[in-house]
Amino acid sequence: MKQFDTIIRGGTVVTAADTIRCDVGIRDGIVTTLGADLQDEGAHVINASGLLVMPGGIDSHIHLDQPSGPGIVMADGFDSGTLSALCGGNTTVIPFAFQDKGQSLREAVKIYHDKAEGQSWIDHSFHMIISDPTKDVLECELPAMVDEGYTSYKVFMTYEGLRLDDRQILDLLEVARRHGAFIMVHAEGYDTIRYMVEKLEAEGRTEAFSHALSRPQLVEREATHRAISLAEFIDVPMLLVHVSAREAMEQIRWGQQKGLKIYGETCPQYLMLTQDDLDREGQEGAKYICSPPPRDRDSQEACWEGLQQNVFQVFSSDHCPFLFEGTTGKLREGEHTSFCRVANGVPGVETRLPILFSEGVSKGRIDLNRFVALSSTNHAKLYGMYPKKGTIAVGSDADIALWDPIKKVTITHEMLHSACDYTPYEGVEITGWPVTVLSRGVVVLDNGKVTGKRGHGQYQSRERSPQSVRR
Amino acid sequence: MKQFDTIIRGGTVVTAADTIRCDVGIRDGIVTTLGADLQDEGAHVINASGLLVMPGGIDSHIHLDQPSGPGIVMADGFDSGTLSALCGGNTTVIPFAFQDKGQSLREAVKIYHDKAEGQSWIDHSFHMIISDPTKDVLECELPAMVDEGYTSYKVFMTYEGLRLDDRQILDLLEVARRHGAFIMVHAEGYDTIRYMVEKLEAEGRTEAFSHALSRPQLVEREATHRAISLAEFIDVPMLLVHVSAREAMEQIRWGQQKGLKIYGETCPQYLMLTQDDLDREGQEGAKYICSPPPRDRDSQEACWEGLQQNVFQVFSSDHCPFLFEGTTGKLREGEHTSFCRVANGVPGVETRLPILFSEGVSKGRIDLNRFVALSSTNHAKLYGMYPKKGTIAVGSDADIALWDPIKKVTITHEMLHSACDYTPYEGVEITGWPVTVLSRGVVVLDNGKVTGKRGHGQYQSRERSPQSVRR
Amino acid sequence: MKQFDTIIRGGTVVTAADTIRCDVGIRDGIVTTLGADLQDEGAHVINASGLLVMPGGIDSHIHLDQPSGPGIVMADGFDSGTLSALCGGNTTVIPFAFQDKGQSLREAVKIYHDKAEGQSWIDHSFHMIISDPTKDVLECELPAMVDEGYTSYKVFMTYEGLRLDDRQILDLLEVARRHGAFIMVHAEGYDTIRYMVEKLEAEGRTEAFSHALSRPQLVEREATHRAISLAEFIDVPMLLVHVSAREAMEQIRWGQQKGLKIYGETCPQYLMLTQDDLDREGQEGAKYICSPPPRDRDSQEACWEGLQQNVFQVFSSDHCPFLFEGTTGKLREGEHTSFCRVANGVPGVETRLPILFSEGVSKGRIDLNRFVALSSTNHAKLYGMYPKKGTIAVGSDADIALWDPIKKVTITHEMLHSACDYTPYEGVEITGWPVTVLSRGVVVLDNGKVTGKRGHGQYQSRERSPQSVRR
Amino acid sequence: MKQFDTIIRGGTVVTAADTIRCDVGIRDGIVTTLGADLQDEGAHVINASGLLVMPGGIDSHIHLDQPSGPGIVMADGFDSGTLSALCGGNTTVIPFAFQDKGQSLREAVKIYHDKAEGQSWIDHSFHMIISDPTKDVLECELPAMVDEGYTSYKVFMTYEGLRLDDRQILDLLEVARRHGAFIMVHAEGYDTIRYMVEKLEAEGRTEAFSHALSRPQLVEREATHRAISLAEFIDVPMLLVHVSAREAMEQIRWGQQKGLKIYGETCPQYLMLTQDDLDREGQEGAKYICSPPPRDRDSQEACWEGLQQNVFQVFSSDHCPFLFEGTTGKLREGEHTSFCRVANGVPGVETRLPILFSEGVSKGRIDLNRFVALSSTNHAKLYGMYPKKGTIAVGSDADIALWDPIKKVTITHEMLHSACDYTPYEGVEITGWPVTVLSRGVVVLDNGKVTGKRGHGQYQSRERSPQSVRR
Repeated sequence: MKQFDTIIRGGTVVTAADTIRCDVGIRDGIVTTLGADLQDEGAHVINASGLLVMPGGIDSHIHLDQPSGPGIVMADGFDSGTLSALCGGNTTVIPFAFQDKGQSLREAVKIYHDKAEGQSWIDHSFHMIISDPTKDVLECELPAMVDEGYTSYKVFMTYEGLRLDDRQILDLLEVARRHGAFIMVHAEGYDTIRYMVEKLEAEGRTEAFSHALSRPQLVEREATHRAISLAEFIDVPMLLVHVSAREAMEQIRWGQQKGLKIYGETCPQYLMLTQDDLDREGQEGAKYICSPPPRDRDSQEACWEGLQQNVFQVFSSDHCPFLFEGTTGKLREGEHTSFCRVANGVPGVETRLPILFSEGVSKGRIDLNRFVALSSTNHAKLYGMYPKKGTIAVGSDADIALWDPIKKVTITHEMLHSACDYTPYEGVEITGWPVTVLSRGVVVLDNGKVTGKRGHGQYQSRERSPQSVRR
Repeated sequence: MKQFDTIIRGGTVVTAADTIRCDVGIRDGIVTTLGADLQDEGAHVINASGLLVMPGGIDSHIHLDQPSGPGIVMADGFDSGTLSALCGGNTTVIPFAFQDKGQSLREAVKIYHDKAEGQSWIDHSFHMIISDPTKDVLECELPAMVDEGYTSYKVFMTYEGLRLDDRQILDLLEVARRHGAFIMVHAEGYDTIRYMVEKLEAEGRTEAFSHALSRPQLVEREATHRAISLAEFIDVPMLLVHVSAREAMEQIRWGQQKGLKIYGETCPQYLMLTQDDLDREGQEGAKYICSPPPRDRDSQEACWEGLQQNVFQVFSSDHCPFLFEGTTGKLREGEHTSFCRVANGVPGVETRLPILFSEGVSKGRIDLNRFVALSSTNHAKLYGMYPKKGTIAVGSDADIALWDPIKKVTITHEMLHSACDYTPYEGVEITGWPVTVLSRGVVVLDNGKVTGKRGHGQYQSRERSPQSVRR
Repeated sequence: MKQFDTIIRGGTVVTAADTIRCDVGIRDGIVTTLGADLQDEGAHVINASGLLVMPGGIDSHIHLDQPSGPGIVMADGFDSGTLSALCGGNTTVIPFAFQDKGQSLREAVKIYHDKAEGQSWIDHSFHMIISDPTKDVLECELPAMVDEGYTSYKVFMTYEGLRLDDRQILDLLEVARRHGAFIMVHAEGYDTIRYMVEKLEAEGRTEAFSHALSRPQLVEREATHRAISLAEFIDVPMLLVHVSAREAMEQIRWGQQKGLKIYGETCPQYLMLTQDDLDREGQEGAKYICSPPPRDRDSQEACWEGLQQNVFQVFSSDHCPFLFEGTTGKLREGEHTSFCRVANGVPGVETRLPILFSEGVSKGRIDLNRFVALSSTNHAKLYGMYPKKGTIAVGSDADIALWDPIKKVTITHEMLHSACDYTPYEGVEITGWPVTVLSRGVVVLDNGKVTGKRGHGQYQSRERSPQSVRR
Repeated sequence: MKQFDTIIRGGTVVTAADTIRCDVGIRDGIVTTLGADLQDEGAHVINASGLLVMPGGIDSHIHLDQPSGPGIVMADGFDSGTLSALCGGNTTVIPFAFQDKGQSLREAVKIYHDKAEGQSWIDHSFHMIISDPTKDVLECELPAMVDEGYTSYKVFMTYEGLRLDDRQILDLLEVARRHGAFIMVHAEGYDTIRYMVEKLEAEGRTEAFSHALSRPQLVEREATHRAISLAEFIDVPMLLVHVSAREAMEQIRWGQQKGLKIYGETCPQYLMLTQDDLDREGQEGAKYICSPPPRDRDSQEACWEGLQQNVFQVFSSDHCPFLFEGTTGKLREGEHTSFCRVANGVPGVETRLPILFSEGVSKGRIDLNRFVALSSTNHAKLYGMYPKKGTIAVGSDADIALWDPIKKVTITHEMLHSACDYTPYEGVEITGWPVTVLSRGVVVLDNGKVTGKRGHGQYQSRERSPQSVRR
């Protein structure tokens, strides 16, 4: 009887703690054995010599096929979005299911299940965005949804129609505490931004760069402090997503040092871009508009410090793809589109891990184990998918990416698989690339060639975050 | 021709910087000469030997005859309130003129001028409380009011019907910046308090101590951080009033160290009381309900650090007198009055300076010059009354208090002149007391005996705060 | 052919990152396989159901058979010391080889190899203590010693005859940088302690509690700051050992946040004891004399924060056993022994891990993975023994401890295996105990019964610390 | 009978707290009256209209005629040094009396009295430099010297032959505590500097810029932390002199926030120069060699923050004049003089106040009162000369400088009165200059013309610093 369907032989297996030379034996999509010189009768053997064998990336912050305003269409749905993720070394993504005003959570989540149905190339789950926290939603629906595996919820402190006020957040946190939901927060100050946007528009300063002016880092810092305070008040864990700047990072560190269960996330755009990119000629700057905006060199450095010093536990893409050309994406009003009507977000699900590997590991800023923690393990743990996802261990899903640590690649839009029409990282030189990817034991990327199938991906119900289960 | 109306002879004159043995010559209510052995022909000579000759206290945070909710009446109007101030060593007070919803600033201020008319024993001015910052109020009225000498404005971040939201504060700060108005902020978080009050009431925890539970120090810290952020954003000076706690103090210090023009004030209740006082038997705790609430020993210590290290520039009473007995004050619903319907505030205009002198100077925590700065000079400077008020110098109003630094007094309600029916400091032992007070050269307190007259006090129009005049 | 000598079946394998249900297959003393339901023909099967299967502890800070002053004899040599370690769940210890003045490093290390020869129950390695950093020692010997596997060196900033001055430390750090030696520092201020000891003795205050007075936490804080500064200056990694207090912890955190490669260690005595223990009746306080001395509750809390927040990477015992009774240990001058002549140190090699598990894991302060990191993995990594030691992974030595996480034990001296005559933790109640231990695949503790043999332990030559290899 | 010898009429009198329009009446060298429109019969009237009337500067950190190594001669003795000070708006200087090894304090101080005899143009006092703190010096001499008015003592932590080790400093601090001596510390790390100097010399890097490399800011930071720790340990006030850098400033601020009586001083060179000045062509860089060395823009900014936020209480010149040309000053070995043999120090007693006024007051960084505090009042208070010196008040010495706040001057060496042959501030443009100076009522500078006389200056015995008198 054959013991393994597949053996990954001769690679260096990396987890969040260990870096070990060994073979990986897979059967029925599960890692069943880690060993030396595994017997290969009947097994498909993948030669991993010279390669790093790492848990497939989990991108826990991506947007797919989400309504983003009148006339705006996201460039990626579940098909192209998950294919792009796969080609970037990922095996799981967690996009958002957005609750519209007046909608029940169940209705909302159904819509996204329908969108994903048969489309995903890799596994996916859903966070929910709460935009309408009625008493019914909070008291009745949410607890049931948590029990059913929808265990993480995102809150916006800004954006018209999305933002919750402090009182709504408190009520949500209180329910989250009782039922073990895990809360993610987009922390920017609504009133300050609105004030500044109106002022800039009134002054006719509608160019892309005004986006950066409309939300300086103190706007993010203040909202971060406020969010942490609300979490401290209710005594509940909280993740601050897409942190862009030194001052916000310092608030998170301060909360952590007080002993609060505060977590942080940053993204490639905050390591690689600056607000100067918003100042590029013509409408080019619109490509780089996302919120919070990219900052300056000092904040890039601060984000690295956050990744190195465990102020940030997760590194995600915040992939939010809008076409630069045409009338459904970034610039619906053409060249006269004001910065505040530019569709907000940058693509990046495929480039996230190569950027972290190249700028982080290859340049000596972080080690391999930290890379695995930031790209996969911590996502799985925080979001209740561990140990099924997020590690290479006996019993875990065989979600594995084989990386060639010395492969050199220059990023171009053409090579990427997103349906978006540009990448903010055009021309960036990368050392280290994921060459082969297995999703639940199936080789879906084989030495750079897509071998997976649309529809292979499965929905992942999740446990409560261990951080959110009250003792 | 007689050179002086009055000479203060042989005392030790103290200013915010100097401590000097000399005589003070006064004519027409003005200090005209500081000298040695001034010629006294025809002058009234006050023997100040063994006494400290200090600028009369300025209490820039007191409430007199202000509407405070249905059925609530303040115990002190301008008559008893300013008499009490006088007897506590003060020569100027700055109570508030409160703008009601829908009211113009001019209407509001007129009401308070009428209340004060002929009643004040010492000089007074007005801050305005902005509760309804309409476009008209901000764009038209406020600039004119500043020009007319109403140069300081108070904002509440909490209290139903009073609080401004962040956007309203931003709009106000922007106008303040353009016109040189100086902004004072009551920083506590509205949503968090409301959440907690509802929760405590729902749980039937209506006793006085719940007041402390409903606004823990993080609520003040968060609002302080937010207020500082708004000031930083608009680039305008700001004073955080009645700071009660270590964490709020640390936020102010942090803002100051960033180079922001952030100022701080604390009050006697935060040095002398703790939340345990709210836990006294029966309804007794209601006497100590004020906002923010008194905290703990550590926060008392932090407030002293703030006074010593110049995190706080001014020390005020926040005198807010409500009768403990009867149905117009603290407990309108009798013994069943919930903590959240207890009238909010403590009296203290007469005890402010003795407490600061005794606990500060006599116990070695601060020196005499710091006492003068905190009790008088910095108030005059911040609020645009200097050098007419706030110092003993040639050309200044002869507003002078003579202190006996070794006089021992035990505070009792009976000895005080407020119309309130209790003092929170009953039984506190004091070393150092103001024995004689001159208001514009007139002896209004003579060795402990009131010699002034109601109506002597004059309204003081004020300059812009030097802190608020844009360069 | 039999595949495994031993199988650990059905336990929960814990590493510094993962917590996994699986079997562990061992052959020739090496972990060869992690898998589900391993075939057990011919293998010895250990039933680990209900148990935690963790890497054996590495105690990288213990003193055995080290000269400690005239007439003083350490209670434990390699025999009893390593047996005690084994019974406390350890599989490796790193005691010190002490260079005497005038001695070559090679002579020094030879002496300790001789002491250890045939005596160790588990594996051991050596750090070297540098007391005489002559030019010859630094330039010639030390580089050769590093190449031979003596890769870590300890420096004392205090103790007569041991301390190096700042210049000597700089010269050593410079050599360490060039040759990849890893430096550990005992950071207390020599001059300040000497000053205080002389003063206390002159005042006749010779009781044990004076030990605490003679080295207050600022003495440790200052030396910690100084050591970090020297490391920063030379640009070399450094470990601060046995950190006892909040202020020293904060200095280390500050250095880490600056991006320096500063590491920290704390010990059980700083979590469990306070200076009040030195104040026990009669000579009893002498039992608790160690340097730095135990502090107060706040510093205990700070040490926990350091363990939780990764300010401290390693948790060691600083086992330093002296008899309380008799004339060769703590009190050589009987009841009149001055605090400064009490032999300095506490035993603890056997209780280190149970205390960390019980107070840390069982009480919810740290999780299992952090326990493994602090007790084993980080020691192996910092000191160049990884992945041979410090994890349970394919290819690693089968150094494994099986813990019963709910076993309750009350610590008594009688149950321990050290030759010391007391434990500072008498009566402490523990939840979680190591019941079975394998050293290189050999069961040396079997369900609480010692089954190993003296002499089984082998000397471990070590690689350079990855932290000390210059890029 | 004439009331006044001199009246300063119509100016704006500035003290550390007040800014007042009034006349100043002087008699017998003392300010006897501050008043409006003083009667001027018989008095010399100085028209101060449009001028600021400020306390004459006190430069409490200057070096005159001090031995500085073999063959080195200071360019200024008491004659040219005090004349230069006078012309820069000063009325008092406190140079150092240096104790040589083996010398008694009394012998040392006699030498400097002899040097000063009949030479000073303005008043002077002496700090003592302790280089040989024998038991006899500390226990017998120092207490007597303090009683006789030598109340401040300087300690060097670096410089061969000058430095005290930590133990010596502790012993001195302990005596200082008992007898009320005030201690000033030059904080740089001896061992680290020596290490680096040797290394740079061995590498042949002898150019002036190596001076900056040999003492990076961490060397100053570490020594500052250490000095503060010693002061904390003994519980005694301490002034850190000539602070040059952000990290040292932050240590002082940290100490102050802990409640320690730590004071700080900075100097013009740390506001105006950077290490790039040491990199000027040829030997030019040697002109800017002083210790600590000038740093970078960030540290300049930090020094301003220290002045603004009261981290620094005094601003002094550290005037230390050596000829650039010739063989007795900076470069005794000509163009081959190694950086470490360049005479160490820059001149600046005449430019100190104009630089602080122009860069501080005129550019809006500090206000006039802060200028007076930093330039005069705080020196007088810290060093026990107040209120005789340091303010304009009844009974104080009439040491007064009249400043023209809008006078523009470009600094050149030629205009200065030091015997040094260069100024580091050549070409700096100044707004605000002292035009007239009175020393004890005598006009010694009259609208820019020197009218004083050598020998006018008197020695000033001093009281204990109020900071050093134990309560």
